[in-house]
Amino acid sequence: MPAAKNRKPLHLNAFLMSTGHHEASWRLPESPAEAGSDIEHYKNLARIAERGRLDSLFLADSPVLMGDPGRRPAAKLEPTVLLTALAGATERIGLIATASTSYNEPYNLARRFASLDHVSGGRAGWNIVTTAGADAARNFGLDDTPLHHERYRRAAEFVEVSTKLWDSWADDAVVADKESGVHALAERVRAIGHRGEFFRVDGPLNVQRPPQGYPLLVQAGSSEDGKDFAARYAEAVFTAQQTLEEGIAFYRDVKARAVALGRDPDGIKILPGIVPVIGDTEAEARELDAELDRLIVPEYAKRQLALRLKIAPDDLDLDAELPEDIPTEDEIEGAKSRYTLIVELARRERLTIRQLIGRLGGGRGHRTFAGTAEQVADTIEHWYDSGAADGFNIMPAVLPSGLEVFVDRVVPILQERGLFRTEYTGSTLREHYGLPRPANQLFDTADQAGRADRADRAAPAAAVPHTDLAAAGAR
Amino acid sequence: MPAAKNRKPLHLNAFLMSTGHHEASWRLPESPAEAGSDIEHYKNLARIAERGRLDSLFLADSPVLMGDPGRRPAAKLEPTVLLTALAGATERIGLIATASTSYNEPYNLARRFASLDHVSGGRAGWNIVTTAGADAARNFGLDDTPLHHERYRRAAEFVEVSTKLWDSWADDAVVADKESGVHALAERVRAIGHRGEFFRVDGPLNVQRPPQGYPLLVQAGSSEDGKDFAARYAEAVFTAQQTLEEGIAFYRDVKARAVALGRDPDGIKILPGIVPVIGDTEAEARELDAELDRLIVPEYAKRQLALRLKIAPDDLDLDAELPEDIPTEDEIEGAKSRYTLIVELARRERLTIRQLIGRLGGGRGHRTFAGTAEQVADTIEHWYDSGAADGFNIMPAVLPSGLEVFVDRVVPILQERGLFRTEYTGSTLREHYGLPRPANQLFDTADQAGRADRADRAAPAAAVPHTDLAAAGAR
Repeated sequence: MPAAKNRKPLHLNAFLMSTGHHEASWRLPESPAEAGSDIEHYKNLARIAERGRLDSLFLADSPVLMGDPGRRPAAKLEPTVLLTALAGATERIGLIATASTSYNEPYNLARRFASLDHVSGGRAGWNIVTTAGADAARNFGLDDTPLHHERYRRAAEFVEVSTKLWDSWADDAVVADKESGVHALAERVRAIGHRGEFFRVDGPLNVQRPPQGYPLLVQAGSSEDGKDFAARYAEAVFTAQQTLEEGIAFYRDVKARAVALGRDPDGIKILPGIVPVIGDTEAEARELDAELDRLIVPEYAKRQLALRLKIAPDDLDLDAELPEDIPTEDEIEGAKSRYTLIVELARRERLTIRQLIGRLGGGRGHRTFAGTAEQVADTIEHWYDSGAADGFNIMPAVLPSGLEVFVDRVVPILQERGLFRTEYTGSTLREHYGLPRPANQLFDTADQAGRADRADRAAPAAAVPHTDLAAAGAR
Repeated sequence: MPAAKNRKPLHLNAFLMSTGHHEASWRLPESPAEAGSDIEHYKNLARIAERGRLDSLFLADSPVLMGDPGRRPAAKLEPTVLLTALAGATERIGLIATASTSYNEPYNLARRFASLDHVSGGRAGWNIVTTAGADAARNFGLDDTPLHHERYRRAAEFVEVSTKLWDSWADDAVVADKESGVHALAERVRAIGHRGEFFRVDGPLNVQRPPQGYPLLVQAGSSEDGKDFAARYAEAVFTAQQTLEEGIAFYRDVKARAVALGRDPDGIKILPGIVPVIGDTEAEARELDAELDRLIVPEYAKRQLALRLKIAPDDLDLDAELPEDIPTEDEIEGAKSRYTLIVELARRERLTIRQLIGRLGGGRGHRTFAGTAEQVADTIEHWYDSGAADGFNIMPAVLPSGLEVFVDRVVPILQERGLFRTEYTGSTLREHYGLPRPANQLFDTADQAGRADRADRAAPAAAVPHTDLAAAGAR
């Protein structure tokens, strides 16, 4: 084991998903039957992750029933609600919820994330997704998903509106001067008057600026549009990378794009996913992995794979390789980079469909690593030192057991090597990731000391709509 | 004091609002400066209400900054987030969040309420509002609010879609048969295929049917449209009634409308608002009330009143009565019944604008009652026995103190009179209100025993979209 080095610690996120990331995990004897709806199950997971001093918890999401509910746990809880509940069960760990820019309104979503940030004392993060798929569209009055480019344009404007809404209250707006009867300084609360391609939003928000300024902005798409979006807006990026070389290339690519936009490369953290399957020996870990794969229902998994590849299930033979004649990435609308990753994995390793299903069943395209705790720590360290990662998105195959083993056996090794914190040093999610609290783009915060002077000059809140207070009551 | 009678208990809801329902309450020395964003303040309120065995907590809402933030606490937290946090701080009390049918999508909102119901173990309620006001519209790309009738038509369809989504999973859908690999019975999860005037929603929901079936459905508008809507959908109604006669008339009106639609009148609970201002003596209570009124900033309150009445502030003279020449209810778009209530109050009691402001400042049109704990209990009992109420919406002028006094001094009197529970007997919000768990409109639950037979006959989940499971991951 190498001696503890004096280096910057890495970051670890726990990606929570029902009974685990392996699609057959629910069939293990210990898995709770209705884990997706079970708040006690999730509270337990959150407390385990916090015990390990992990930076954050993360929940994926799409506003549609995903997959065949007959074959795996498809029902779940809405992430902003679930993470709010987990905020009350924990004290320090960050809480990252996925939410769609295609099927929400900025005013509503900005309020919810601001509220989660207040309720959790500055622990909220937003994984910004554009939501591919006609099935989701059909829950919102549309026949099909908007095109990829258009979804990303809307996402960009959505984020711009949201940050303006979070900035519509200066941090020092509320004075609550009981003597004079002035609650907030009128000139420190401001309408945003946004007029754009997708949104018209007057503001201001009806929630005070969040403790973190903005929730941590996270992104997880790795298409060209996705990488450009990440470079511009994201502060953390979840990504699926199968090989170290691909991981390094992705890391350099995204950081370079951020630098080209004038950003500090250290202001955007790259977190590849890893599905650690941990045993006392490597053989034991591989056997656990194989045991899980044996629980996959192959015909169901084949049907899901065919759907993703936009081909007929009958065109796939479980014991043959991927056919040559499949669509190109350009023909796929959404989840583009994941599509390419799967095809390249199959071709590179010349996997049969049955083998490919096993590899995907464990992590849906994320990298599965079966080995001892020491080996898992080694591969994390190796990727980190090689410049492929600022940290990792930990996706246990089985929950809670896989998270427990990771926290109890891998984390101590990383701590011993000086690679991971032994105690939380900050209290907000941004502090855990070493990211700054954003300045307010609508108010000059550097000049706050001069605000009393400015208050005399300012017009009385002309920009703020004077809605009838009394109407705030029950209606 | 009358002896304990053997009669049906009444219901009590605590309407939580920042530092209290009196608009000047924030100026009292004990009021927290940023109460609207202070989760600890709200947790304290929730625990006090639960200590009093109250049926529920309630939060009003509109997706807009209401009133002048310079003059009173206008910032707040989004109700579904805040109540989720309060679910974790309490065990039994119900949690009723207001949410707008005009500025949400049914799929999103149905998910959040279903999730809150799961997280809280069946304690969620939804106060269904249509959201009046151009200011809110301008946060959602509109120039003005849709017309009153259209808002209510949309609300009705929104509720229909939501109940179908909650019903899209049969209660017995999940079997989690680990041996066979069947997680849910495919024929017990169903798309809803809704096609209506405002919404097209395929479904199914991606949340299992909530513990309560549906969250408790609550309504709070008292216009003609509002009463019709309540008669059709609501299980509890919050209403502002200034006099016993008006209260009785409203109660009879709504129940009769429900009966005309074939509903059990006992299935819709009427809860008038009351702002109890409690002192050791009646004189002390009146002095507390007057002290609060003296803290109102009259020019600000006059401006707010003018806005509500759709006239210019200069047309109001603080020391004169309401002018004759003001709009009729028909000319008001939204908050219609509240408008009429205010005008009638001013005319009936021949109040000056200054006096009217004092009366409205305490409860925004709700009935303020200043007296001893005994007198407050008496008026509650009198309204209840007179057939004006099934319970009350308690709106303390000052929080937490007003809620503490109510719980510690009024509740014991009501308990002693046999009018209120001394312990919770149920665990869900519906059980507290004595309301049934709704049957599933999409599945025949009476016949659940026969499901094994039916499973053999049923087509394999043709109605369920087979979205790619793998896409559930981070995107």
